[in-house]
Amino acid sequence: MSSERLIYLPLGGAGEIGMNAYVYGYGKPGKERLIVVDLGVAFPDMDGSPGVDLILPDITWLKDRRDRIEAVFVTHAHEDHVGAVAHYYDALRAPIYARKFTANIARRKMNEHGHPNDAVTTAGVWPEQVTVGPFTVGFLPISHSIPESSAMVIDTPEGRVIHSGDFKIDLTPGVGEPFDPGLWAEVCKDGIKALICDSTNVFSPLPGRSEATLGPEIEKLVGAAEGMVVATTFASNVARVKTLADAGARAGRSVVLLGRAMKRMVDAALETGVMTDFPPVIAPEDARSIPRENLMLLVTGSQGERRAASAQLARGKYQGIEMKEGDLFLFSSKTIPGNERGVIRIINQFSEMGVDVVDDSSGLYHVSGHANRPDLETLHDVVKPQVLIPMHGEHRHLREHAKLAEAKGMTGVLAVNGMMIDLSGNAPKVAEYIETGRTYLDGTVKIGALDGVVRDRIRMALNGHATVTVILDTDDEPLGEPWVDLMGLPETGRSKAPLVDVLEEDLSQWLNRAGAKTLRDDDKLNEGLKRTLRQSAMDEIGKKPEVTVVVSRLS
Amino acid sequence: MSSERLIYLPLGGAGEIGMNAYVYGYGKPGKERLIVVDLGVAFPDMDGSPGVDLILPDITWLKDRRDRIEAVFVTHAHEDHVGAVAHYYDALRAPIYARKFTANIARRKMNEHGHPNDAVTTAGVWPEQVTVGPFTVGFLPISHSIPESSAMVIDTPEGRVIHSGDFKIDLTPGVGEPFDPGLWAEVCKDGIKALICDSTNVFSPLPGRSEATLGPEIEKLVGAAEGMVVATTFASNVARVKTLADAGARAGRSVVLLGRAMKRMVDAALETGVMTDFPPVIAPEDARSIPRENLMLLVTGSQGERRAASAQLARGKYQGIEMKEGDLFLFSSKTIPGNERGVIRIINQFSEMGVDVVDDSSGLYHVSGHANRPDLETLHDVVKPQVLIPMHGEHRHLREHAKLAEAKGMTGVLAVNGMMIDLSGNAPKVAEYIETGRTYLDGTVKIGALDGVVRDRIRMALNGHATVTVILDTDDEPLGEPWVDLMGLPETGRSKAPLVDVLEEDLSQWLNRAGAKTLRDDDKLNEGLKRTLRQSAMDEIGKKPEVTVVVSRLS
Repeated sequence: MSSERLIYLPLGGAGEIGMNAYVYGYGKPGKERLIVVDLGVAFPDMDGSPGVDLILPDITWLKDRRDRIEAVFVTHAHEDHVGAVAHYYDALRAPIYARKFTANIARRKMNEHGHPNDAVTTAGVWPEQVTVGPFTVGFLPISHSIPESSAMVIDTPEGRVIHSGDFKIDLTPGVGEPFDPGLWAEVCKDGIKALICDSTNVFSPLPGRSEATLGPEIEKLVGAAEGMVVATTFASNVARVKTLADAGARAGRSVVLLGRAMKRMVDAALETGVMTDFPPVIAPEDARSIPRENLMLLVTGSQGERRAASAQLARGKYQGIEMKEGDLFLFSSKTIPGNERGVIRIINQFSEMGVDVVDDSSGLYHVSGHANRPDLETLHDVVKPQVLIPMHGEHRHLREHAKLAEAKGMTGVLAVNGMMIDLSGNAPKVAEYIETGRTYLDGTVKIGALDGVVRDRIRMALNGHATVTVILDTDDEPLGEPWVDLMGLPETGRSKAPLVDVLEEDLSQWLNRAGAKTLRDDDKLNEGLKRTLRQSAMDEIGKKPEVTVVVSRLS
Repeated sequence: MSSERLIYLPLGGAGEIGMNAYVYGYGKPGKERLIVVDLGVAFPDMDGSPGVDLILPDITWLKDRRDRIEAVFVTHAHEDHVGAVAHYYDALRAPIYARKFTANIARRKMNEHGHPNDAVTTAGVWPEQVTVGPFTVGFLPISHSIPESSAMVIDTPEGRVIHSGDFKIDLTPGVGEPFDPGLWAEVCKDGIKALICDSTNVFSPLPGRSEATLGPEIEKLVGAAEGMVVATTFASNVARVKTLADAGARAGRSVVLLGRAMKRMVDAALETGVMTDFPPVIAPEDARSIPRENLMLLVTGSQGERRAASAQLARGKYQGIEMKEGDLFLFSSKTIPGNERGVIRIINQFSEMGVDVVDDSSGLYHVSGHANRPDLETLHDVVKPQVLIPMHGEHRHLREHAKLAEAKGMTGVLAVNGMMIDLSGNAPKVAEYIETGRTYLDGTVKIGALDGVVRDRIRMALNGHATVTVILDTDDEPLGEPWVDLMGLPETGRSKAPLVDVLEEDLSQWLNRAGAKTLRDDDKLNEGLKRTLRQSAMDEIGKKPEVTVVVSRLS
């Protein structure tokens, strides 16, 4: 019996939807050669990560084992799968493999960070394979809401493992490859050790619908519209962008792309040949001379992002274009949980302009990119793995998917971020628990989610901030009165006197009563001033601010 | 022709869902006698109002006309209708009228604020009426998700106006009065000048379902459960609380109420007799000695509120009770848009415990308290008003409802907060635009939403905070170096040196170069130090912090 083992370790994406990062390893324990599948980001929000620019997986474990990493494979070009490759290239220095569309997007990111183009290798499609260390890896096409999404077929000395990537079962996806059951059956015919499988839509009970069902409905809607039509969707959903553009063109409208991502994705799809025909596009500045009933705008910002084209149009002009009463705005998209407020804000702003907004509540103008429960079962039945490990889901999704697997006679393994699974032999087992977490890109700095930086910002948002300044002379005696500056706090409270005056008065009294021992001790002074200010504020305004105490001693 | 006029003025609730406050007036322009219908609150969120405790309508306009206010009428006891009565009692000093259940809840609030019990008058039900100034007002029962919800029948010299309050068309609401079409037809038989109408569910195309449809499904679910069952709903939905409790009792389970609001609402319903039979309830401490499969807990926190019972159970023990693998948690509720993150957090925490969570995605365990589009039409058809003014909705709801009214041959008036409508004569018209807005209860202080206080807190949350301290001697020469304290910012940036050191060095250089004129001028010093720190931070960490500059001059 070999002492080598095959391991699976999610560092992101298992226990959340976002920042996917999965590690596979083979070798003697602690000496495994490693590959990484996907290196994505998640997006911050005001609730939990105010001011943060991007959320990245914590890859400390990988960095410490950098010499053992053979390669990074990227399944597809969504931000939650490819978004971190450039941010972590310096840290990992591993070659990156992706198919041509994904590689095109990845290289654009690498260029922005000044990394070399040849760090990204364009991989061919199955049956081509790449051998890196003990792994032989192939990109097996699977349909999703972006071109060239692929499952990874990972051949190891312990057998073949399939990492599904994000997928749906779509036989007519428009742009990109349809799901090919025959090809999949062929790949899986000798038995699959484990399927690591997308879990996003495990709670959706009905079979998913094909991208192709949308075209006729969208054409009907656009054909009947009387004013300008503006539609938003994820720019990376090239098939959808094309469906929308085609509907516009067929209604005799000129197509305009608004928002950087929209142009970038269409360019990448044309450059790489994954899309060959797209209606002619006119520039925003040329749109102004065209009657609005002859215009079809495709814009970014389906999730209500404040800086994207949709939100800007909702606030007023964007690139010289303005929406008006009688225009139509179409969300050919679903609102991701957590983004409701931003989307609703836009809808109400359009309502104030007299713009009619159509969203997906009718179910006619959007289909999901992920496999619903019956479609997950279709993949299970084609792959027939011994072991099923759910990924790409919150805990509730993983748990439900693992239960489904068990109910169908597979071994279901609920593995969350940091749980290293040993897949060798016949029964998978937890090999180790790795400390994982989130890294925040904050401005240009990477900080740990638990470093306390963001916690302090949240506290200031909740409680406001006060600065107390005290100057002591060379005899440790206060020189003048303590000085208070406030930010994010009301000007007056209970007593109607200026809050600053009330606080300064209370601090002054405390300072006058403080003994020489306290006055000599910075820590005691700091602690006493802080406590006094917080108590005084509590009495006056019912809040305890965050406090910065500055003690200056003349020397 | 009379020079008197009848006016309608929404101060809250028209252009948002929450903080309802509607004014009716009759008299000579500028001298109208006024009544207020509802005085509610809205709830803050981290996105837009971090640290705020409650959002109240801005009632400056009313305060300035306090001597003209005859009374405040409260349609029902939901927080967005009654929540502000105690907060504004001192400001308005107007008598408050409500039916007995609503009055019971209102008096509890008044007591907490030390206001007199008799400020709230218990009103009888239609055909009883109260005459206040030129208005004669009656409480006409209408079904909703709380007992004794009522429409206001407002008789004026210009005719009869109906203010629907929140409602659904429910002939079998469980607790509380069913909608009575015959009574409504009788009230409306002589013609209705205007219907001011709930718009919440105008986008829901199917007829609403009755509260009574839920009992059998909930009984089935609870009957089949093997562990402890915990269910959450709005505590004020007394009918639902009873349905849940009855299902527990029928399954042989002891019922426990967890969370203050749950106990308060059941007490109020029993005290006022709107509910006469409720299963016996045991105390949380007694529950510990009962096998978990014999327990049914009804808990607060259906919206994922962090301090409510649901969230506390999801984090661990609450009042000695702990959920375990095999227990069932039921959301007999809908997640209000914007609360998704909190609810999903709880579901995942329960998933980690092995607790099965059932929510309303099946449509079996919750019905809305608001009239769907066909039910709105039912009310329109019963009331047959000349004018329909949509209320209780965001702009998109009001606009859609006004369009619906116009399509049905009524005059639809889209009136948002601050828009005073003159309802006299035959054609309603905008009489005036009043400045309105939101008042924040922040700790114990009321501040204006646009005062800048919360804006500063949001900026600190996004950008962090830096304090710069400089001491100048009597000759206006810097004494020592500038001093920097940071909060909510990373410790190091691009150069890897401590951020504080980098900032202090740059500030020091700027200060050394500053001329005597700058050093003498507090504003110039302040401005220069702030700009220098922000630029230096931008270079080092890619962020511009909020800055407090403290300049101390020795004298």
